[in-house]
Amino acid sequence: MKLILLSGGSGKRLWPLSNDSRSKQFLKMLTRSEDELESMVQRIWGQLDLNQLLDCTYISTSKTQTDIIQSQLGDQVPLIIEPQRRDTFPAIALAAAYLDSVIGVNRNEVIIVMPVDPFVENQFFNKVKELEDVIQQSGMDIALIGVTPTYASEKYGYIIPKIKNENPQKVQGYIEVAGFKEKPTGDQAEKLIAQQALWNCGVFAFRLGYMIDQLELRGLPTQYDKVLEHYERLPKISFDYEIVEKAERIVVVPYNGYWKDLGTWNTLTEEMQTNILGRGSISDDCSNTHLINELDIPVVVLATSNIVVATSPDGILVSEKSASHHVKEIVKDIEQRPMFEERRWGWYRVLDYKKATEGMDVLTKRLFLFAGHNLSYQYHHHRSEVWVVVAGEGEFVLDDQLSYVKKGDVLTIPLGAKHGIKASSDLEIIEVQTGSKLEEEDIVRLFMSWEEMKKSLESK
Amino acid sequence: MKLILLSGGSGKRLWPLSNDSRSKQFLKMLTRSEDELESMVQRIWGQLDLNQLLDCTYISTSKTQTDIIQSQLGDQVPLIIEPQRRDTFPAIALAAAYLDSVIGVNRNEVIIVMPVDPFVENQFFNKVKELEDVIQQSGMDIALIGVTPTYASEKYGYIIPKIKNENPQKVQGYIEVAGFKEKPTGDQAEKLIAQQALWNCGVFAFRLGYMIDQLELRGLPTQYDKVLEHYERLPKISFDYEIVEKAERIVVVPYNGYWKDLGTWNTLTEEMQTNILGRGSISDDCSNTHLINELDIPVVVLATSNIVVATSPDGILVSEKSASHHVKEIVKDIEQRPMFEERRWGWYRVLDYKKATEGMDVLTKRLFLFAGHNLSYQYHHHRSEVWVVVAGEGEFVLDDQLSYVKKGDVLTIPLGAKHGIKASSDLEIIEVQTGSKLEEEDIVRLFMSWEEMKKSLESK
Repeated sequence: MKLILLSGGSGKRLWPLSNDSRSKQFLKMLTRSEDELESMVQRIWGQLDLNQLLDCTYISTSKTQTDIIQSQLGDQVPLIIEPQRRDTFPAIALAAAYLDSVIGVNRNEVIIVMPVDPFVENQFFNKVKELEDVIQQSGMDIALIGVTPTYASEKYGYIIPKIKNENPQKVQGYIEVAGFKEKPTGDQAEKLIAQQALWNCGVFAFRLGYMIDQLELRGLPTQYDKVLEHYERLPKISFDYEIVEKAERIVVVPYNGYWKDLGTWNTLTEEMQTNILGRGSISDDCSNTHLINELDIPVVVLATSNIVVATSPDGILVSEKSASHHVKEIVKDIEQRPMFEERRWGWYRVLDYKKATEGMDVLTKRLFLFAGHNLSYQYHHHRSEVWVVVAGEGEFVLDDQLSYVKKGDVLTIPLGAKHGIKASSDLEIIEVQTGSKLEEEDIVRLFMSWEEMKKSLESK
Repeated sequence: MKLILLSGGSGKRLWPLSNDSRSKQFLKMLTRSEDELESMVQRIWGQLDLNQLLDCTYISTSKTQTDIIQSQLGDQVPLIIEPQRRDTFPAIALAAAYLDSVIGVNRNEVIIVMPVDPFVENQFFNKVKELEDVIQQSGMDIALIGVTPTYASEKYGYIIPKIKNENPQKVQGYIEVAGFKEKPTGDQAEKLIAQQALWNCGVFAFRLGYMIDQLELRGLPTQYDKVLEHYERLPKISFDYEIVEKAERIVVVPYNGYWKDLGTWNTLTEEMQTNILGRGSISDDCSNTHLINELDIPVVVLATSNIVVATSPDGILVSEKSASHHVKEIVKDIEQRPMFEERRWGWYRVLDYKKATEGMDVLTKRLFLFAGHNLSYQYHHHRSEVWVVVAGEGEFVLDDQLSYVKKGDVLTIPLGAKHGIKASSDLEIIEVQTGSKLEEEDIVRLFMSWEEMKKSLESK
C-alpha cells in the first residue's frame, strides 16, 4: 500500500494568514504541547508516524510549496512535484505515473490518496488502512471513507449508499455506493442523512493498475517523464469529477469518529486551545472571540463577541465568525505580493514596500537564515541590494570574492553582481532592494549548493 | 484680549493613533474638503482665523509637541512652551507670566484660556469674544462658557447657577455661578439639568492681574524666567481645582450650540464624514462601523456592526464603540516606543524593532524629510547607522566632510561620527540603527541650523 497526501490549494479562506505561498495547512495554530504549536501538515505527519504509515507515504505538491514542506517536515520527505498547479486529477495522475514508472510499484498494489489536512482522531487511520483490504477483497475499483454526518451541512459532498430492504448494503465493513451529491441545500441534506448518506472526506483507494488504465483509456501518457512533459495539457479537473463520479464499482467505508475540515476561521478557531496567539489582549466581556496576531505590534480587542481578529504582514481581518468564509471572495481582488514566506533556508518578512518614486521601487525585508543554510549564489537583472547584518555571522561571496561577515557589517550588492551567503550561526539581515522591478522571480541562480560554488571558485 | 489655547494630554483614549508624542488633537481625521483631512488643531486654527482671533492667540504646550504643532500650523505660531508637562494650573501660570513679563500685556487686559480641541460651530467663538466684555462689565474674577446639556452625561463637569425666584440670575447674557459638580451619576446629572446646570467646556476668562495676584498669594514666582526655572516645583493640579473652584466671584455665559469633546473613538467617529480612512473594506452588512487604517496593509471588516477598527504602527484596536473609552486603561501598561512621529523636518516610521540579539538591538526606520528641511548635525553615543537613500537628493555631512547624495546611495555612519543631512528635494531614507541602546534621546545636537553648521565647517 502506498499513501499519497495531496498538498494543494492556495487557500485564501484563511486570509490574511494564508496566501499564495503559505496555504492553510502550513499555519502553525494547533497545540502540539504546552509551549509548542504545529501546523495541520505537521499534525498529520505525526499521526502517520504513530500509525506506522510514514514509510509508505509520498506528498504530492507543487513547486511553490516544496520549501515550506521541507522546512516543516524535514529535507527527507518524499515529494512528487507538480510542475504547475492544475487540479486533483492531474496531480493523482502524476503520482500514479511516478509510482509506476519511477518507483516500480506493482500494479496490483493499493494506492490511497488523501488530503494533507483533515483534522481527525487517530482511529481515522485504521479506516485508511482498512481500505487496502476492502479493495483487495471486494474487487471494486474505488473505495472511499465516508464520515457519519453530525449535522445537515450544505458545504460538503455526500456519498449516497445503495439501499436494499431499507438498509444500506453493508458487507464486511463496507457499503456499495449509489451516487454522489455535492453541496446540497439544507433540506436536501436532511433527506440525504435520512438515507444514511455519508460525508465525502476526499480519501480514495484504488489499485495502481486501475489508475494507469484510466489514463490509457483517455489517451494520456502513463510514463512519469511524459506526464511531466505534457502536464499543462492534462485536463484541469478534480479526481472526483473525472474518475470517482464516472466509476461504477465503488464502495465506502463508514467512519463515525471526529473529522473536521479546518478550512475557515470559524472551524479552525474551534480547534484552537487558546483564544490568543501572538501579542495582544481580549477584554473579559468578550465571549467566543479569537485573536491570531502575527504582527509585532499589540492588538486590543474590546467588548466584541463571536469574532475572529487575524493579522499578518499581508493584512488584517476582523470578522464575525459565521461570516468568515466570505473573506475569500473579498480578498481575491486584493493585489499584493506575499509579505511573509517560509523558505528552505529560513524565512523573510517584507517590512516596507514602496512603489516607484522617481522610477525606482524600494523594498525592505528582514531575512532570517537558519544556521548551516545558504542563499543560492545568484544575481538580479533589475535590482541592487544593501544588506545590513544584524545578528549572527556567515560566509559571503560577492563576484567570486569570498569573505567572512558578522553582525554590524554592511554589504552593498550592485545590480548584476553575483552574490550569496551561508549562515554559520543563525543569521539575520535587513535587506533594502532598490530597482525598476522588484519581484521574487528576478533571480538567476548560478549554484544552489554552497560547496559546489566554492569548488568552482577554487578551480578558477 | 489674549487667547491661550492649551495643547496638552498624551491621550491614550484614541490609541493606537494617539501616543505620547501624537496627542489626539493632531490626528488628521476630520474632513476639511473633499480630498483633504485635517486635525482638531488645524480645524480650530481655521475657525480662529475666520473669527479674526489669530492675532491675539498663543498656544501653551510642552516641548514634545512643538515639532508637530509647527508641522501642522506653520513655523510662525506663537508658542509658550512648558519645560515639562505638569497640569493646567502650572501651564496657565507660565502663560500668564509670559504675557506679563515678556510681552508686557496690561494687567487689566482679559485673558481667555481654552482647550485646543473642542469640536464646535463658529458661533461658539462669539461667546468666547463676549467673555471679554463680561469680565470688564461684571467686575467678576472669572467668566466661563457653559454648554447647554443635551443629555444627562456622567462624563462631564457641571456648572451650577445661582437660583433666585426659581430662575437663574441672568444679567446681560451671563449668570452667577453657585458651584460645580464633576462627573455626577446619571441621577445626579438629571437633577443638575433640572436646575439648569451647564456643562463646563474648559473655557476660562480673567484679567491678567487676577492670575498674577493668585500666584503672589501662593508665594509663587510671577516673572517668566523664574516660573520657568522653578517649574517643577509648581503644584501639579488643574486650574479648575486650584483656581476656579476656590474663586467666589464667577459667572458663566451659556452657549446652546453644538459642542463636543472628541475624546473617544465613539465620539470621534460620529464626526467623521466617511466610514473608512486608509486601505480596506467594510462589508455591506455592517452598520455604524468605522475603519481607520494607518498601516500599509489592507484591513477587511466582515459582518460586525457598531465597532471601530483603528490601526497604526503602534498597534491595532478592535472595539465595540460604546466600550472604546476603556482602551486607555488597557494600553497604559503596554510599553512601547513610539512607532511613528511627526517632526519639524518631516516624519519617521519604525518598520522593525528587535531587542538585543547578541547584546545589539536593531531598529529599522523609514525617514521622510520635506524639501528644504534638515536633520540637525548630531552624533550618537550608543548606535551606528546605515542610511539607504531611496528617493530624492540632498547635502550630507559626515565628520565635517560635506557631500551631495542621491537615491541609491548608501551612507554608513559609525558610532560617534558626526552627521547631518539636508533635503534638496523631498528625501526618503531607510535607516538601520544598530547599537546597545536605541533611544530617540541618544542624540547630541551640535548645530540645529544647517547654515551655521556650514559656516563653522568653512572657518576650519
